[in-house]
Amino acid sequence: MESPDWAERLTAALAEDDPDALRELLDGVRPADVADALTDEEPRAIWRALAALPTDDRAEVFGYLVPERQVALARTLDRRQLAHLFRHMSSDDRADLFNRLEPEQQDELLPSLAQAEREDIRLLAGYEEGTAGALMTSEYATLAPDLTAAQAIARLRLEAPDKETIYQAYVIDAERRLLGTVSLRELVTARAHERVADLMTTDVVTRRAGDGQEEVASLISKYDLLSLPILDDADRLVGIVTYDDAMDVAEEEATEDFHRVGTVAALDSSVREAGIPLLYRKRVGWLVVLIFANAFSGAGIALFEEIIAAHVVLVFFLPLLIASSGNAGAQSATLTVRALATGDIRPKDWGRMLGRELLVAVLLGATMGLIVSALGIVRGGAEVAFVVASTMVLVVVIGSLLGMSLPFVLERLRLDPATASVPLVTSLADIAGVLIYFSLASWALQIPAVPG
Amino acid sequence: MESPDWAERLTAALAEDDPDALRELLDGVRPADVADALTDEEPRAIWRALAALPTDDRAEVFGYLVPERQVALARTLDRRQLAHLFRHMSSDDRADLFNRLEPEQQDELLPSLAQAEREDIRLLAGYEEGTAGALMTSEYATLAPDLTAAQAIARLRLEAPDKETIYQAYVIDAERRLLGTVSLRELVTARAHERVADLMTTDVVTRRAGDGQEEVASLISKYDLLSLPILDDADRLVGIVTYDDAMDVAEEEATEDFHRVGTVAALDSSVREAGIPLLYRKRVGWLVVLIFANAFSGAGIALFEEIIAAHVVLVFFLPLLIASSGNAGAQSATLTVRALATGDIRPKDWGRMLGRELLVAVLLGATMGLIVSALGIVRGGAEVAFVVASTMVLVVVIGSLLGMSLPFVLERLRLDPATASVPLVTSLADIAGVLIYFSLASWALQIPAVPG
Repeated sequence: MESPDWAERLTAALAEDDPDALRELLDGVRPADVADALTDEEPRAIWRALAALPTDDRAEVFGYLVPERQVALARTLDRRQLAHLFRHMSSDDRADLFNRLEPEQQDELLPSLAQAEREDIRLLAGYEEGTAGALMTSEYATLAPDLTAAQAIARLRLEAPDKETIYQAYVIDAERRLLGTVSLRELVTARAHERVADLMTTDVVTRRAGDGQEEVASLISKYDLLSLPILDDADRLVGIVTYDDAMDVAEEEATEDFHRVGTVAALDSSVREAGIPLLYRKRVGWLVVLIFANAFSGAGIALFEEIIAAHVVLVFFLPLLIASSGNAGAQSATLTVRALATGDIRPKDWGRMLGRELLVAVLLGATMGLIVSALGIVRGGAEVAFVVASTMVLVVVIGSLLGMSLPFVLERLRLDPATASVPLVTSLADIAGVLIYFSLASWALQIPAVPG
Repeated sequence: MESPDWAERLTAALAEDDPDALRELLDGVRPADVADALTDEEPRAIWRALAALPTDDRAEVFGYLVPERQVALARTLDRRQLAHLFRHMSSDDRADLFNRLEPEQQDELLPSLAQAEREDIRLLAGYEEGTAGALMTSEYATLAPDLTAAQAIARLRLEAPDKETIYQAYVIDAERRLLGTVSLRELVTARAHERVADLMTTDVVTRRAGDGQEEVASLISKYDLLSLPILDDADRLVGIVTYDDAMDVAEEEATEDFHRVGTVAALDSSVREAGIPLLYRKRVGWLVVLIFANAFSGAGIALFEEIIAAHVVLVFFLPLLIASSGNAGAQSATLTVRALATGDIRPKDWGRMLGRELLVAVLLGATMGLIVSALGIVRGGAEVAFVVASTMVLVVVIGSLLGMSLPFVLERLRLDPATASVPLVTSLADIAGVLIYFSLASWALQIPAVPG
């Protein structure tokens, strides 16, 4: 990281539009750091900084900006500037940006690009967001199977400037069907005359362009791959996904699950850049659903108005009991959702997990029951203490079992277990808590449960 | 993935202890998949499978097992078997396993290893868990600065079998101080007589062995690195962290934050493998703390027993109002915790986020207030509807502002924002909800707030 002083001087140089000062300040700074420093600037100021950079660095810094900033910046550029930037971006970043431009700007841009670039954009930009096709790059190195190791290295050497990686090369036939992969490490350690066909690995992990990018990212992580080849429906190689893009996808997916568990709908945007209408839309849905879910708890309470009126002290323990049930359930749901997402547990493990959860929940419920029974004696006497403690044990067990099971149920229904697990568990546990608490109280304090 | 039939035949071959069948079944299966298939087997059965594999594959499959399985398996091996396994493991996996063995087994093992392996284990196993030192490998390739590109490639070719990567080579002086890095790509594309000193990058991102592994992983992701060199306090190169280990760390860190937000203490173990006492310990702490936090809500309610007794209908709306406040707060806390963790927002962004959060919360509160006012009219008439709707707007705004601010406060206190943010916000929002609700009700329904 550069010093705070550096950031100040950069802001000053941007404000003054001083290209020489900018060039000096940005020289030798890593592209990711330049992008970081520019993130709060106006599009015009960002462009001033980019214009002061060498062409290749310019495209790289641009690629590190968050998508919202990229689009805002692209809108301020004329056709010539935008075409120049496009020409130097990596093929996957370029296709992403193209998809985010307004149709008019897309139409304006295409004629300024070379034929090969246009075709590349058409190929990559055609895949739906979230698919492997939308994530892949077309800048991979290919080899023919009959080359020798020495010829293959010579070939990769020539191709290196235009390829995202030369550490994995893809061996294809005349129809671009994938025959195998060979690493530069294997080529370098092989004898010069050995043939690529004899060196290559034929047992390659591949996926289709229409497959989900989450799956591709987790395969790259599982098998410690540098890149994973993507095929079309005719088994032809159409692109590769590299490990650095897989890391970004893994982070995005974790963020999405995180948000879902916190009942925020998937936010396809930086929180920093998200506008107020977007944030409102992503949050209001679950809040409204949960109002209705919680109205059931209220309706549960209404069944017992008589006992509440007779023993108002019971209300003192209500928030505590239903919160404990919800908290225990949220813990179980959190553990289960994350373990299913990382592959630590699988759908078939349900039975085994359920037995263990029961034991843990009984221990937790007993501990918590002991604590609230003390509170119960102080505030309401032995009978209330008994009701409160028994309720605690029951609701913690029920909440925990619900929390552990619901993600499995959602998974079996082919829904994402992260969606709604925690709030649904909490609401269900709340309702169960209300019913159990007041039923037990009615029985122990000998008052009819339903006023009639 | 292999077929279910394959898994069955594998289990049968393990039960029958049939080495020939095992060898045939495991031939050509990827090490990560073999480890997956063995994960539910007994240690003795796992060893039978490993023994049927070629030596290098055996160590690799072993490295893919979760740590708890590795230790259980290691306990069943004799000194000779364990030493053989150790000799073929990668240096970082080996050091991790060594640290998890019982002291007696460590003492028994060391004399069976070669001098170089012993020293390597002593070096790597000496670093505290969670540090870059504990994550790094000592199997990196080094070059002298005065070699030519051709000489450097020849050198890397010889070193390849023992190194984790040869795609990044580290240029060091006679004291092992890091001078720069050069990639195999740069060496391959350079002219044969160019010198490493002229080809290498001197502006290298490095960290110390004592630095946190989370930081190292996020640097690798930020700068799209293949590996990051680790230095000791005298600037000497002691190891490298590779991208695949960084991916694992990023996943672990996300899991930890996930658990913390779900009020489960950091679980340094697979959920699948965790025992009941461990799960109990990791969950009971927050549940008990939250009982006391929620007892405050109960105490808040107790202040208003009189108005509750007079208007029992108010209790109907209680779960709904305090849950809404908590839910809105949990949403804000979730968004903020994750955005701080990924670097999307920074501590200095608080003011900016607060203003936006206020606007979003007012919109959310108004929407939800409208909905509950309808419920209020149906159940309690216009006055109750007014109280309930006004309370809703206020508690949603307060919950949201609390939820957004608390992670910033924890960050400024140098605590992990993920810890406790959501449950604390929920509890605080609950208490605020109770007080606001009944105060408003007392005022609107003209009943003294505190019974005297």
